[in-house]
Amino acid sequence: MLEELSVVGKRLPLIGGVEKATGTALFTADIKLPGMLYGKALRSPYAHAKVVKLDTSKAEKLPGVRAVVTGKDVPHKKYTCNIMTYQLPEPEIFDRYLFDTEVRYVGEPIAAVAAVSEEIAEEALGLIDVEWEVLPAVFNITDAQKPGAPKLHDFAEGNVAAANMPLFPYGDVQKGFEEADIVVEDTFHTTKQIQCGLEPESVIAYFDHTGRLTVWSHCQLPHMLRRMLAYLFDLPEGKVRVIQPFTGSGFGGGTAIVGEDVCSALAIKARAPVKMVWTRAEDFACRATREHIAELHAKIGVKKDGTPVAMELKVTGDAGAYMGKEISGCAVCLASNITNYEFQNMNNELTVVYTNHLNCEAMRGFGGMQSTFAREVLVDEVCEKLGMDPIDFRIKYHRKPGGLGWFPGTAITSCGVEECLRIGAEKIGWKEKRAAKKEGTRRRGVGMAMMAWLSGAQPMLLEHSNATLKFNADGSCSLFVSPGIMGQGILGTLAQIAAEELGLNYEDISVVYGDTDLTEWSVGTHASRGVYCIGRAVKKAAEDAKAQLIERASKMLGVAADELEMKNRRIYVKANPEKGLSVAEVAEDSIYSHKGDAHQITVHASLEPTEFAPPWQAGFAEVEVDTETGEVKLLHWITVHDIGRAINPMVVEGQLFGGAAQGIGFALWEDTVISQENGRMVTDGFDTYKIASTLDIPEKFEVVLVEEGDPTGPFGAKSVGESGIFTMAPAIANAIYNAVGVRINDLPITPEKILKALKEKEKKEKEKS
Amino acid sequence: MLEELSVVGKRLPLIGGVEKATGTALFTADIKLPGMLYGKALRSPYAHAKVVKLDTSKAEKLPGVRAVVTGKDVPHKKYTCNIMTYQLPEPEIFDRYLFDTEVRYVGEPIAAVAAVSEEIAEEALGLIDVEWEVLPAVFNITDAQKPGAPKLHDFAEGNVAAANMPLFPYGDVQKGFEEADIVVEDTFHTTKQIQCGLEPESVIAYFDHTGRLTVWSHCQLPHMLRRMLAYLFDLPEGKVRVIQPFTGSGFGGGTAIVGEDVCSALAIKARAPVKMVWTRAEDFACRATREHIAELHAKIGVKKDGTPVAMELKVTGDAGAYMGKEISGCAVCLASNITNYEFQNMNNELTVVYTNHLNCEAMRGFGGMQSTFAREVLVDEVCEKLGMDPIDFRIKYHRKPGGLGWFPGTAITSCGVEECLRIGAEKIGWKEKRAAKKEGTRRRGVGMAMMAWLSGAQPMLLEHSNATLKFNADGSCSLFVSPGIMGQGILGTLAQIAAEELGLNYEDISVVYGDTDLTEWSVGTHASRGVYCIGRAVKKAAEDAKAQLIERASKMLGVAADELEMKNRRIYVKANPEKGLSVAEVAEDSIYSHKGDAHQITVHASLEPTEFAPPWQAGFAEVEVDTETGEVKLLHWITVHDIGRAINPMVVEGQLFGGAAQGIGFALWEDTVISQENGRMVTDGFDTYKIASTLDIPEKFEVVLVEEGDPTGPFGAKSVGESGIFTMAPAIANAIYNAVGVRINDLPITPEKILKALKEKEKKEKEKS
Repeated sequence: MLEELSVVGKRLPLIGGVEKATGTALFTADIKLPGMLYGKALRSPYAHAKVVKLDTSKAEKLPGVRAVVTGKDVPHKKYTCNIMTYQLPEPEIFDRYLFDTEVRYVGEPIAAVAAVSEEIAEEALGLIDVEWEVLPAVFNITDAQKPGAPKLHDFAEGNVAAANMPLFPYGDVQKGFEEADIVVEDTFHTTKQIQCGLEPESVIAYFDHTGRLTVWSHCQLPHMLRRMLAYLFDLPEGKVRVIQPFTGSGFGGGTAIVGEDVCSALAIKARAPVKMVWTRAEDFACRATREHIAELHAKIGVKKDGTPVAMELKVTGDAGAYMGKEISGCAVCLASNITNYEFQNMNNELTVVYTNHLNCEAMRGFGGMQSTFAREVLVDEVCEKLGMDPIDFRIKYHRKPGGLGWFPGTAITSCGVEECLRIGAEKIGWKEKRAAKKEGTRRRGVGMAMMAWLSGAQPMLLEHSNATLKFNADGSCSLFVSPGIMGQGILGTLAQIAAEELGLNYEDISVVYGDTDLTEWSVGTHASRGVYCIGRAVKKAAEDAKAQLIERASKMLGVAADELEMKNRRIYVKANPEKGLSVAEVAEDSIYSHKGDAHQITVHASLEPTEFAPPWQAGFAEVEVDTETGEVKLLHWITVHDIGRAINPMVVEGQLFGGAAQGIGFALWEDTVISQENGRMVTDGFDTYKIASTLDIPEKFEVVLVEEGDPTGPFGAKSVGESGIFTMAPAIANAIYNAVGVRINDLPITPEKILKALKEKEKKEKEKS
Repeated sequence: MLEELSVVGKRLPLIGGVEKATGTALFTADIKLPGMLYGKALRSPYAHAKVVKLDTSKAEKLPGVRAVVTGKDVPHKKYTCNIMTYQLPEPEIFDRYLFDTEVRYVGEPIAAVAAVSEEIAEEALGLIDVEWEVLPAVFNITDAQKPGAPKLHDFAEGNVAAANMPLFPYGDVQKGFEEADIVVEDTFHTTKQIQCGLEPESVIAYFDHTGRLTVWSHCQLPHMLRRMLAYLFDLPEGKVRVIQPFTGSGFGGGTAIVGEDVCSALAIKARAPVKMVWTRAEDFACRATREHIAELHAKIGVKKDGTPVAMELKVTGDAGAYMGKEISGCAVCLASNITNYEFQNMNNELTVVYTNHLNCEAMRGFGGMQSTFAREVLVDEVCEKLGMDPIDFRIKYHRKPGGLGWFPGTAITSCGVEECLRIGAEKIGWKEKRAAKKEGTRRRGVGMAMMAWLSGAQPMLLEHSNATLKFNADGSCSLFVSPGIMGQGILGTLAQIAAEELGLNYEDISVVYGDTDLTEWSVGTHASRGVYCIGRAVKKAAEDAKAQLIERASKMLGVAADELEMKNRRIYVKANPEKGLSVAEVAEDSIYSHKGDAHQITVHASLEPTEFAPPWQAGFAEVEVDTETGEVKLLHWITVHDIGRAINPMVVEGQLFGGAAQGIGFALWEDTVISQENGRMVTDGFDTYKIASTLDIPEKFEVVLVEEGDPTGPFGAKSVGESGIFTMAPAIANAIYNAVGVRINDLPITPEKILKALKEKEKKEKEKS
């Protein structure tokens, strides 16, 4: 058991929660600036075409129109919407122009209008005269790689951006398979899930008379957005400011440029604030979403006793028309697979192909969703062949602390998965339910899956974090940090870390965030990094501030600093706790000393973690499958998560519940349908794209936290941002197999696929008998 | 001559200037918050009365009224509007209650209303039922001190707050006068000038669900306001946030609570944002203005050769009903007198009396205005008696560097007044014009005056200042500072100091200010402290940041840090300037190093000056007096100012021109008339209170800067904020004497007073002949 702490571990209210609950929170769409204009983009109706003519003169003449922008109005330079590229030592592929003369997906903007109203902007779009030369297009990875397929980019032969690229292989996988007693392999398909934030893309940009571009955006990586916009518009980085209002979307959608490029172009031309709020259909069709690992081929070899000797994972990603995060997504898919089991040999390869879709960026569970699905289903198959309980296999062969990390040179710092597995099995009634007889048309089954994730992607990516603490005279302080704000509760969590370290109360910490001008540089939020990376910087700043306060108290009390303790808003003599000062007295003295030694206590800390501190998880599902309709009903779900330490258990549970809800969609319903005829998004609204609603959540929906502490995490904490989503799909797939004996390897697992599989199974069984 | 610098000394545009010029600047009155209410105060029509009954029930029932506050709604505790009190080691007199049951001046608030519109709030005021018991009142210092006069406060016997209090006397003044060959003495009266900011008092307060009070205010001392509001409303200091929007008034008016107390009380009760914008009449009658040094008695003794042996200055202040800054004002009046001339002995005494007026706070030229007037006129008389040219006297006997400072223990760090005197005399044609024959009904004369002021009031007052610099990856940076913003140009000036020290360009510095949550603690702006006190903190932060950047460059270049120089946005080897890196390259490396040593360069500096670095000045006036009407026309004005170093000459000149314009008003027109019958403000608008307009400014209106550098100032700079205003009144008075031979010692010098004096003079001359 971890030691109980004062502020950390408490279920404290979220910062901004009341504002959101009472409707007083200002989202970007709520902000009105003096003289603000409204922007609309003119988008390509074709998946692949050349703009032969683009005449904006009529639109420009429409009363109320203030600016029309085309490629002629912006620097002619290649960029990428993947702003995370700056976290790599060398930026990745820059392969797109803003308002290009050749479009490569339906919805690609070729021009935009800013006007005094949305209606006039819309009308002006209709006055832009465009002549197109429609080109042949490809809509899937198979067609794209065929000889003679239409070519998207000059530099990508056969539309291949990366071919059979190895990623951190080790050992001799060939030899491993030869030594294996049992080898199973299978092919899996996953879909391009959509983040479905309730806030459609909303952005305001303003280019002022000092040559400074200010952008109000829900971006999760404000400092990265700043850097890319500065690059794109030939501005010094310091002349771009990104402000994050309350945001109603995230889930990875904010790790890329969404509408900020177009809106900024308008603002720079109009020299007035311009707001763009996308329609829901635009948001579905034109906001880059999940990395699309279209196909995974997985192969596992084990000894008779289960010893995992070899694993191979080959994945093919569908990048869409431009290189967002598709290579990264495939890489993470492979890297995240390494840490789970003690395979003696491993081979990982990725291939990425361009197609005439919207490009891919990121969504919660980036890359790991897909490999977890493939691996955990395959492990289930392996266990069946071994005649070994899947939980016993996992308890025995999961990687242990000190074992191989995702990235070369990293090691696992802690692992609580055994506890997760035992708790989940007991809670769901694993042995009994699994062994229960499956009869009738509504058959129940249980399944589970396991995974290890990461807490920031160091050292692959730069995860440099900063925090500053500034003390007020009453002993309270401002904490300056720069996470991306997505309602995930990170602000309060960071405040709890600071308060705990400083021996203050939660309400003593006032968090300043969401403005690149005000806060320290930070990567922002992605890769479940917030609590671990930023939290460590906050803890370091708090440690340093504490030392300064104790030093001042030492002088005031005439007692050596090492004899003092700081707790409960006091600094006191350890050996004689009655002798001491309140933190307020010390802070006040530092500001108002009147003795010539006044000094504002302000402490800044930079921190660059070197560990990746994996959180572990086991997810357990009980399902009921209707053999007549193929319908799957999730009856019971349990996430057991090794969080290291929950800074705010309410926040952690919220993340895990929310992730699991998105996991159900990924497993059973969510399917981005793109017309294979014209490349248009078919599922461009909540009517055609089904996500889990509260009615879809089973009554038995549980989260259990395992807290054993990570030696590197702030107060032992590891990440939870993405974790909720991973194990649902494989656990459901395995539970379905347990219930009705069919394995569906193509997500989502629709009734149609189940019925088809049941029929095939029936047919095979008949053939056998 | 001082060395020429790159950024310092340049006429660079003001930060916020374009916004103000184009009307896009948002002042408090322009801000609209969701759900905002509008507040109005119910004010006493009597100068002294008891509130026998106060029934707000009808007002509360008026539809649209959201809150009515009286004394019952606020903590019953004494406070002071003089928030500068916290700069003293022990706070001064707390002698007033908010919404008291006994009022002591016309306009004192006894209740307030917040409603959904100003009209409804106004209507609600009329529904408040008040029963008054009118008490006898006193309206001037003479009546107030009479036996049996109505008593304002229990603790102030005879209404005297301070009686014959000595202030920094030295030597033996009695002996001095005995040794003197010539002794002159006289009594002077000055009036209570009004700041006349174009923005009437405007404040917004909001008390949110977290128990935090946010106040939008033009306060010049945001951190001090924060502290007093926290005290007044029993809140922790960290739970009060003060935000400074663009402001259209200052001149010392923001060194006190104006409407923030009443507005906050409404906001706390209403739990909604409340805005109060005062009417012009309210602003004239209820915003505390200049310290009122009602009477000055000055006496000077010199030897035959002019040697100044003794001076005595006794002043009586009219505090009004509560102790704002009246004691401080009288103290500054006396202290500022010390530094000018080498008097061998000096005696200074102050008396402060309560009367039934609005309390006094501060205005530009605080206290020093009045002593400069008395002393410089008296020195003119002394010189006449000596038969010595007033300029020669001043050149000979002004205090020199190392000489006595305002405050015990301080010394003069630099003095350029000799140069000021010589330049002014030459430019105005002193000798010729002074000696010219005075004939006809329009007689011309020249006069001059001299003064030494201060750059912050250390070590009397806590002048602790802070600055933080945060670097962006492009080598630009954010500068966090907390001056009070009054359009005085301090933000750009501080940016220039930072840029100069860092070898960057002006536009590389982005200034963050005006928010107690975001910026470091700072006194704010008063006592001409900005450039000297805050500027020194900025310079120190820049020095430290420079050292960090050079250190990093040293590692990158493999060259010892002391061999490197940082200039022109580069860090290079001194001996081989071609070898080096841009600051951008170094700053970028610090953030994006990808080598495990990333570190955001953020530097914080605290600084508490110990010197007061007096700026010196000589002001020269040429006037024409119409002997038939008594009208005075200012023909030519020259301010020659020892600025040490002008960081931005345009800003410095602007301050001096503006101050001089206010000086004309103080000399000739501005007179706050309070009815001696009922204590009501007679001059409560621009129609009855005459300030200088552009038409009143003479064509020959000059400013000359003397730059010899102060060894303690940032790049040699001393202050200029208040300096423009001082010498005008005595120089004009002396010029009038030169023109027509009469001395008017009561300000303002109206035609009536001149005509009366001319008649008396004529009568005397007739009697003589």
